[in-house]
Amino acid sequence: MALEIEKLLLTIIGKVSNDIRSLAEAPKGYDESDRTGYLEIFPEYREGLEGIEAGQTIMVLFWLHESPRDILKVHPRGNEENPMRGVFSTRSPVRPNPIGVSELEVLNIEGTRLQVRGLDVLHNTPIVDIKMKI
Amino acid sequence: MALEIEKLLLTIIGKVSNDIRSLAEAPKGYDESDRTGYLEIFPEYREGLEGIEAGQTIMVLFWLHESPRDILKVHPRGNEENPMRGVFSTRSPVRPNPIGVSELEVLNIEGTRLQVRGLDVLHNTPIVDIKMKI
Repeated sequence: MALEIEKLLLTIIGKVSNDIRSLAEAPKGYDESDRTGYLEIFPEYREGLEGIEAGQTIMVLFWLHESPRDILKVHPRGNEENPMRGVFSTRSPVRPNPIGVSELEVLNIEGTRLQVRGLDVLHNTPIVDIKMKI
Repeated sequence: MALEIEKLLLTIIGKVSNDIRSLAEAPKGYDESDRTGYLEIFPEYREGLEGIEAGQTIMVLFWLHESPRDILKVHPRGNEENPMRGVFSTRSPVRPNPIGVSELEVLNIEGTRLQVRGLDVLHNTPIVDIKMKI
């Protein structure tokens, strides 16, 4: 089964706006974060947001654009005291396809701007998908 | 912030091997599936699997290569009796970036071949990431 390259190209649907400006100050995971901020979805995707409401938990997929893609083992949580493990057995942002998955609480919606709680990614991180949490 | 196109290109790390050959026979979600099969990870990613063990639940990201990317509203579960909703408020495979996220139970590991339970994707679906479930 051949896959054409253009079919594997991600489309950015929006960007994060928050006050996390460095990895050092980023929470290690959404489950450890109470940081709020905004998902600024581009207007052309407005229709796709219909049905999302304040109070819901959504699953958001980010493209972690500053993560290296060529490393297969890491010290979990970036702590050298933790023995090295394969990236696929961790939540490290380092991985061949640096997609981050966070579950966020929707606080408010203004058009295509979603205020959310639980952010663990940097300001300006590209957003590639939103799904309802199962 | 400009992103170069080649940086948004997904890398396939493996393929699914199972007996789901058509969308009609695919479960609607991993939470409704007891279908077993294999994640055939390409050998060059072997190191990244270290730490994954039978009995664990892993989060697997698939590239749903047969899903349309240009539709923003759907009838949830493909049932026309369900009112149309934005794809981002559903788990529909239809979305601008057709990435599926499933939580699967690891049954057995043979090298880079992981036997799993809970599959809801077609045979030959490309795999793009594996993470530990939070």
